[in-house]
Amino acid sequence: MEPAPDPDKPMDATALARHLPPSSETRRSPTPPASEPPRSGPRLGVGRFDLLTRRAAETPGLISFAGGLPAPGEFPRTKLAGSFVRALQAPSCPALQYGWPEGDEDLRSWIAGQLRRRGASVARDDIIVTSGAQQAVSLAAQMVRGPHARIGVDPESYPGALDLFRSLGMGLVDDGSHVDAYYLMPALPNPRGRRLSAHERAKVLSTLRPVIEDDAYADLCFDGAAPRPLLAEAPDRVFHVGTFSKTLCPGLRVGWLVPPRALRADVLKLKQAADLQAASLPQAILEDYLRNEDFDQRLVRLREFYARRAARMEQALRRYLPRWKFEPPAGGFAIWVEPDAEPNEAFFLAAAIEHGVAFDPGSLFRASGAVRPFALRLCFSSVSRDEDLDEGVRRLSRCWSEVA
Amino acid sequence: MEPAPDPDKPMDATALARHLPPSSETRRSPTPPASEPPRSGPRLGVGRFDLLTRRAAETPGLISFAGGLPAPGEFPRTKLAGSFVRALQAPSCPALQYGWPEGDEDLRSWIAGQLRRRGASVARDDIIVTSGAQQAVSLAAQMVRGPHARIGVDPESYPGALDLFRSLGMGLVDDGSHVDAYYLMPALPNPRGRRLSAHERAKVLSTLRPVIEDDAYADLCFDGAAPRPLLAEAPDRVFHVGTFSKTLCPGLRVGWLVPPRALRADVLKLKQAADLQAASLPQAILEDYLRNEDFDQRLVRLREFYARRAARMEQALRRYLPRWKFEPPAGGFAIWVEPDAEPNEAFFLAAAIEHGVAFDPGSLFRASGAVRPFALRLCFSSVSRDEDLDEGVRRLSRCWSEVA
Repeated sequence: MEPAPDPDKPMDATALARHLPPSSETRRSPTPPASEPPRSGPRLGVGRFDLLTRRAAETPGLISFAGGLPAPGEFPRTKLAGSFVRALQAPSCPALQYGWPEGDEDLRSWIAGQLRRRGASVARDDIIVTSGAQQAVSLAAQMVRGPHARIGVDPESYPGALDLFRSLGMGLVDDGSHVDAYYLMPALPNPRGRRLSAHERAKVLSTLRPVIEDDAYADLCFDGAAPRPLLAEAPDRVFHVGTFSKTLCPGLRVGWLVPPRALRADVLKLKQAADLQAASLPQAILEDYLRNEDFDQRLVRLREFYARRAARMEQALRRYLPRWKFEPPAGGFAIWVEPDAEPNEAFFLAAAIEHGVAFDPGSLFRASGAVRPFALRLCFSSVSRDEDLDEGVRRLSRCWSEVA
Repeated sequence: MEPAPDPDKPMDATALARHLPPSSETRRSPTPPASEPPRSGPRLGVGRFDLLTRRAAETPGLISFAGGLPAPGEFPRTKLAGSFVRALQAPSCPALQYGWPEGDEDLRSWIAGQLRRRGASVARDDIIVTSGAQQAVSLAAQMVRGPHARIGVDPESYPGALDLFRSLGMGLVDDGSHVDAYYLMPALPNPRGRRLSAHERAKVLSTLRPVIEDDAYADLCFDGAAPRPLLAEAPDRVFHVGTFSKTLCPGLRVGWLVPPRALRADVLKLKQAADLQAASLPQAILEDYLRNEDFDQRLVRLREFYARRAARMEQALRRYLPRWKFEPPAGGFAIWVEPDAEPNEAFFLAAAIEHGVAFDPGSLFRASGAVRPFALRLCFSSVSRDEDLDEGVRRLSRCWSEVA
């Protein structure tokens, strides 16, 4: 028995925490029913495969390797709830009120500290909190956009950025020819998961072009802490982009942008015009959570978790689809796979969904949208259970033997 | 004494609610210390008065009539906390995961229902949930923008929209001459608080131009429920914009856009490029809150609350500054005031802050940025206590007698 809470006394977050269903931080085997599919992410929400993606999301029992979603079992629900309650206790309740366009001060201090540890010379006021990394990329792209600007991207790159650059009328260049700016994920590129080499880094920096450095997965390199960012080498022309979506949870929609200092005021005006500010409540929750938790420890655990899943999916691929080629990723959520035949992409995706498994079609990641060479991205991150990795690959294999 | 909660049992939101400090829904006199100033809103965060606004926000004991913030005492903290806990209980925790770019399905149904009650023919899938009303205006503006598009605005209008149109390179027109599109707040214009007349509505509609209808304050008309929106008359060319920021709380950053049906897919692509989606967590909280609460009842109470505050500020103005002209607003958060002399605007604002009171300078609301005729917007919405309205106007009056 515990005493009845006094309504005038500040809430005890630990007491609240006990009310919540345990997250995997307190119990290791979260088992949502297998029939509940993880929702496919928005990465495919609008576009060529929209209908297929939505069909997949509504298919009971489907195992989804699509979307680049983090594992819901790893969301620190109990702790975030504690932070929520504490955030609501401030007298005038800033968590529910308007805030400054650049974001919460303490949150920006924390982000700056993380970047300094990685070798970048960054102060709190260099950080602009954004509505997710996507908005950070959008703001940066608007700053580097000239008339018909050409932006250099990897041969395979993040579809959300490619779509954005297209919507801004920018030219996408993936063949190494002249560009006005780059969009890169140096620490851990999506979808290939193969880190930029020292040579490649040096080459990009030697062009003296602006670089949008998307660091979304940097903290999830399997071999340890996030590497030194490009921002550390060229702060005057790197737009550094980060997010809590992969390491904590996407539902808060909090990312950040470190623009070159000379452009900060202009970027802030764009940010304010776009949506005034990132949501106060998620920022307040984050600020409290980061003050009270050992985030480094969480990252160590997450790296182990995703590395284990990656290894298991690799094993399943070698076993059930031994002729598919892939390079084991150095981190992140996914494996980029190049099968040994070239069926129609949309047809194969539709067939796979019929077999109870979904994936991200390779053409989505290409500047040209090319369907050849046939490839797919398989996310090991968000299935409910490790066993789903085996079963999903088995389903893919069965479908492949019928179609290819 | 109440029994210790069982960690494996779903949380009882009512039990949690008892832990939170009471909101004004359960206790009528929230009294945060007078020395804690409400934070000034982002409406002035970047721009000509940025430094002054920030100085005001850090001045202890300052009474702020600036920013267009809702009353923090009216945030339903306890109920939102209950909704948060329930939202976290779903097995795969969609509240913390990525969601669809158009937003939560049930939330969109609720919004569509509200608009139908006001006479608009709107289905769930016509609604796009946005990162606040600002983003909705931004998306709409991008859709109506042509080369050098001219947008018609009221002689005084919402600064966030004016700044946005400027950043998009649009021409601002406030003299009734030819335009390509309109931005209007027909139900309750900010800052004047005087509803569009039937004649004015008919005139705008007769031009057959696209209209961005910003309905932010529509639910806070003092004389009753929100009026029929322009959307109901011309759904094929009205971009209807709404928000929960004024009626619930801004910290959730949830608004919506109803674009013309033929443009929905294009708008959704823009939305996804901008920030993928509105934050999942605030949407999940809202969805639960709206399902469980009587929102109409809340609106009735809020209208009474703000009408009472408006009346008290009017009374204070008549008493302490009897030569200042103003029209009592028909709703919303503010009174537009035209004093009887024309001091330097920035100088008067700085002097007012020295006297412990802040306001929004009139030039911010003008397309031209004109400082003449001298005017100011006084928000009665967010001061801690009703008495602060008297004291703030008294301070303004003292400052005025020294300066003007």
